[in-house]
Amino acid sequence: MYVLEPKSVALIGASDDETKLGCSILKNLIGGSYKGEVFPVNPKHTEMMGKKCFATIGDISGAVDLAVIVTPAATVCAIAEECGKKKVKTLVVISAGFGELGTNEGRTREEELATIAKKYKMTLIGPNCLGILRPSIGLNASFAATPSASGSIALISQSGAMAVALLDSAEGSGMAFSIVASIGNKAAMDESDFLEICEEDKKTRVIGLYLESIKDGARFTETAKRISAKKPIVLLKAGVSTRGAKAVSSHTGALAGSDAALVAACDAAGIHRAHGAEEFLDLLSVLSSEPPLLSPTIAVITNAGGPGVLATDAAEREKLLLTDLDPETKAALKAALPEAASIGNPVDVLGDAKADRYKAALHACAQDPEVDGIVVLLTPQVMTPCEEIAKAVVTMKKSHPLVPIIPCFMGGPHVESAKKIFSDAGLPCFITPEAAMRGMAAMLEKTTHTPEKTNHDRDDDRSSGASGILKGQTGLLEEELTEDLFELYDLPTPDQAVARSAEEAVELAKQIGYPVIAKVSSPDILHKTDIGGVRTNLQSDREVASAYEDILKNCKKALPTAGIRGVLIQQFLPIGNEFIVGGIRDASFGPLVMVGLGGIYTELFRDTCFALAPVTMNQAYDMLSSLKSWRLLTGMRGKGALDIESLAKAIVNISTMMHDCQRISEIDLNPVLVSKDRIVVADAKVVLK
Amino acid sequence: MYVLEPKSVALIGASDDETKLGCSILKNLIGGSYKGEVFPVNPKHTEMMGKKCFATIGDISGAVDLAVIVTPAATVCAIAEECGKKKVKTLVVISAGFGELGTNEGRTREEELATIAKKYKMTLIGPNCLGILRPSIGLNASFAATPSASGSIALISQSGAMAVALLDSAEGSGMAFSIVASIGNKAAMDESDFLEICEEDKKTRVIGLYLESIKDGARFTETAKRISAKKPIVLLKAGVSTRGAKAVSSHTGALAGSDAALVAACDAAGIHRAHGAEEFLDLLSVLSSEPPLLSPTIAVITNAGGPGVLATDAAEREKLLLTDLDPETKAALKAALPEAASIGNPVDVLGDAKADRYKAALHACAQDPEVDGIVVLLTPQVMTPCEEIAKAVVTMKKSHPLVPIIPCFMGGPHVESAKKIFSDAGLPCFITPEAAMRGMAAMLEKTTHTPEKTNHDRDDDRSSGASGILKGQTGLLEEELTEDLFELYDLPTPDQAVARSAEEAVELAKQIGYPVIAKVSSPDILHKTDIGGVRTNLQSDREVASAYEDILKNCKKALPTAGIRGVLIQQFLPIGNEFIVGGIRDASFGPLVMVGLGGIYTELFRDTCFALAPVTMNQAYDMLSSLKSWRLLTGMRGKGALDIESLAKAIVNISTMMHDCQRISEIDLNPVLVSKDRIVVADAKVVLK
Repeated sequence: MYVLEPKSVALIGASDDETKLGCSILKNLIGGSYKGEVFPVNPKHTEMMGKKCFATIGDISGAVDLAVIVTPAATVCAIAEECGKKKVKTLVVISAGFGELGTNEGRTREEELATIAKKYKMTLIGPNCLGILRPSIGLNASFAATPSASGSIALISQSGAMAVALLDSAEGSGMAFSIVASIGNKAAMDESDFLEICEEDKKTRVIGLYLESIKDGARFTETAKRISAKKPIVLLKAGVSTRGAKAVSSHTGALAGSDAALVAACDAAGIHRAHGAEEFLDLLSVLSSEPPLLSPTIAVITNAGGPGVLATDAAEREKLLLTDLDPETKAALKAALPEAASIGNPVDVLGDAKADRYKAALHACAQDPEVDGIVVLLTPQVMTPCEEIAKAVVTMKKSHPLVPIIPCFMGGPHVESAKKIFSDAGLPCFITPEAAMRGMAAMLEKTTHTPEKTNHDRDDDRSSGASGILKGQTGLLEEELTEDLFELYDLPTPDQAVARSAEEAVELAKQIGYPVIAKVSSPDILHKTDIGGVRTNLQSDREVASAYEDILKNCKKALPTAGIRGVLIQQFLPIGNEFIVGGIRDASFGPLVMVGLGGIYTELFRDTCFALAPVTMNQAYDMLSSLKSWRLLTGMRGKGALDIESLAKAIVNISTMMHDCQRISEIDLNPVLVSKDRIVVADAKVVLK
Repeated sequence: MYVLEPKSVALIGASDDETKLGCSILKNLIGGSYKGEVFPVNPKHTEMMGKKCFATIGDISGAVDLAVIVTPAATVCAIAEECGKKKVKTLVVISAGFGELGTNEGRTREEELATIAKKYKMTLIGPNCLGILRPSIGLNASFAATPSASGSIALISQSGAMAVALLDSAEGSGMAFSIVASIGNKAAMDESDFLEICEEDKKTRVIGLYLESIKDGARFTETAKRISAKKPIVLLKAGVSTRGAKAVSSHTGALAGSDAALVAACDAAGIHRAHGAEEFLDLLSVLSSEPPLLSPTIAVITNAGGPGVLATDAAEREKLLLTDLDPETKAALKAALPEAASIGNPVDVLGDAKADRYKAALHACAQDPEVDGIVVLLTPQVMTPCEEIAKAVVTMKKSHPLVPIIPCFMGGPHVESAKKIFSDAGLPCFITPEAAMRGMAAMLEKTTHTPEKTNHDRDDDRSSGASGILKGQTGLLEEELTEDLFELYDLPTPDQAVARSAEEAVELAKQIGYPVIAKVSSPDILHKTDIGGVRTNLQSDREVASAYEDILKNCKKALPTAGIRGVLIQQFLPIGNEFIVGGIRDASFGPLVMVGLGGIYTELFRDTCFALAPVTMNQAYDMLSSLKSWRLLTGMRGKGALDIESLAKAIVNISTMMHDCQRISEIDLNPVLVSKDRIVVADAKVVLK
């Protein structure tokens, strides 16, 4: 691939001044095993580090596949132009001083650079980046130190500093890289483009992404979903804190927080989300070296009780199961281990265990049909031959290639050389049971929803019907139109109509049938209950008439400037199990659908699940079953099951509506009353852009 | 202190065979800087490693302060007897083969050993332990490697293997120890005794406990509470997983899980709870070297944007606040840093920062009146002088001794020597922003409730009244007695009485006033609703009569053998905000009181708080405000506040009842209906031992 394996590299801004990046990069280019040609470019020199130095890239006689630019920002566009004329294929702009400055000048310069790259059909990486590394051909076109081994992990980092820190942290861990690239300002190539490079690259088996922003969420999700089925993707995303979450006008929006879209996207795309730098490296390490864990049932082998208990605790947190061992396994363990050993799970091979006991225990557990993964714990006791045991574990891993076997050697200097045996073999070794279990859990294969042909294939009639209803509307959609829209999308609403006088309210109540509920109808009032805009369980004409007057009085007092259309008279539904279904539109990831526990507990417990819209019925069921409130639906404490299917359909329909109607920014159905045989949307809110 | 600083040590079971523990221990005893006398004891030798060897301890002419026994289990009691006669003060039994075997022989041997120690007034550590270390006098009476430095951390471990692994992991981290001891089987000295040793020890500033069980929970809590105010205590407790939780008969019991008592105890005693080996060491490290963090407002200094964002995310998770810097601080930063630097929080000193910029930023932030702690992030970029910056941070820490300053140098080999500068200075240095923030958060001082004189001082009249009511009762307490008990403890119950016939039920309903509720009255039926044993909102004589018959029919069908006393007719209370208040008795920690969200959501969300009983009103308020449901009480979405005071009083009263009445094993008040001006206990269950 020409981006990853250029036959020649020009470095524009090459330098022999040790304090300059141009010097570090040149050293990296010529100091390794890269077999291609390297051309330093610097008009002030004719020779540099034993190489001929060129005044401009145009002066080079041969072809240049890759040009690395590290000159001051003001000079970059002109140089890029020269590179284009020289028919350079890939341009890596390391120089800073572009969009990241936040100035107009910086942004204009970055746009100009992107235009030049496009004009000459050059692949543009950066600007403001670290460069790229391709260890398998000894190419280090960056100012990072070269990693010690070539391997199967692609590390794509938005930040050069993080790439450097992560590479340095990985040194000595046995991790080996296929690609290292920093993507900088993403003037042209963004994370999705790099994912596609990793997808095509035969050397890459696992992809690690460090990102601070995602340029096109929808494309990112789609690309990652396609790739993650073949190559696991681990994401470390900085910036999940809620401090900057923007103002929203619906419950759904308030419940979403700033991270909901990304969580939904990772879920949809089968991306492993790391929650810190250490977990990021740990996951990459196990995913690049271990076979998948087929089920959560594992065994633990230990030479001390305490760490075994810590491992049991950690396994439970990670939803792994220390299975009961098979009688045959127990018999094999009994035969191989001393009498005082524990042949339960954890298997305790005792403090004086040598390699033979570990080998026997590993062999027995790996044969057990119930055991799909093994964690091997070691504490360095007086007689413990740590290195021998490490070698034994490496050997056993080779003879059981389909079983993930994760060592955890606790301690410092005493286990150092044992850990080196693992890293030399390219295998991870953890130092705490907690990290080992987290690594093991990551090996469980992610299931993503395979594309199904479903009812959310665009229904053009419905979609154009919706367009008609929404035409000319902005802000909060009024009740009648909301009802029309809901009818179109098969969302059941109660009998209702808006009254413009107390007399009309009584008439409507009689038509609908008592008891009824009365609510203010106003595009300007979002939280009706809070200001006395709602009266429930009205039983008689007299109650309805006085509710009408009270509501108007309350609303005028609380919000004198609010436009009021009248009072909505609605069939009163018995208090049931209240859920919330909603939709929001993320600027980057597009429409999301949400379901959660409704009513007063919504905000207290935030028991919600978000997914990228549209969703299928299967996904809707999965969303529901991920809620703590799922047990309310299936029936608890003697109560029967509720109408789960109708609720799932409502989720699918809202997701389709969000997908069809780009002008809807937020929807709340809250509460959706769920009984045994039906659901009713008791209140709803549709907000248009 | 004689336990920690013996003037002479005898090792019984000394050996020159490298495969024996007796050899490792002897080497440790004579190989270090210990100035006291060391006497090897072994009848088969007259000389060992250049020391005179004695046949028995009785043959030693001088006094022996400490005797370490490492002979086979069967010989230990006889040897202990000899030690007693020799007036040994402290006995450390390393030998295994006692209670941990789980055999009668082992248990008997352990009891005998304890008896001998008691008879001769010897302090007994072990058996089945690692031994003890006192680095300040060069004493290593164990088979663990000697830690490199003497310091202020006491490490008390139930497991010898964990102690070894933890010490080894701490090596090179700058952590230094005052005491290292493994407590083994706790035949005499348990964790509370060791806490008291640490309390008296002038060298110990911080205490780390690794425990698998707690012998006397009540004493442990009391001791830890007293000590933690002066010396922070960090606890790593193995065995929190719920797999083994025993069967319970109340909601309170079911909600408690296996860890509730320990969580309540840590809370009451101000113990830092670590959730893994790494966090355990990290917390000990910061707590032993840093001053307290006075408020959660901190600053972050970084030389790269990405790690700064990760640190911001981690700070939010740890409930720390990156405060807005003071205008003066910003002015100082602006003056000292280049224009492109960010003078927000995080302060970004840029990728090419040298020590001077870090120094200036640290000085400015340390002066800021709003900043109470500083995290210093570094990524090893091309020009980064990591060691110089480390030295600068150490210097700045010395000139700002009251501000916790925690360095986080990300990377591996590139920051190795910088980390050594910190460890040589006895200071922690983290490698991920997540760990640094966790460490910083641990520095926030724990607040524990200072003892108050309150209404839970034993009320003897009430206590003896309760004894009278409970006399002769077992199992589930019947309604009338429950009502008497609740009256005694000021717990408001609704009007109610048990009917033995449909006619009597109707009579009672008329007396109480409609609407009423009818519930089966039976000591054998715990979950009445589940089997159709409850009918609510009964409005008329006819409804009550038929409810009576239905309930009896349902219960007889579901539980034909259940004894049924009749049907309880009770005032029907409007559905309000339902809470649960309860009590359980932990075998080790004693009585606990619990409050949580009641009704159907109790089991779904487990929004509960447990505390050791009795509690004060202040503690009851704290319990309530720690609930997510607290906002239900204070009023949300236009609803006013509920009667929080009465609910807090009920918590105090139940806690006092649990404290007074040792025979009550579990209590449930569920639901407690809380309205604006009162509470009513709508249903209750008292289970006696």
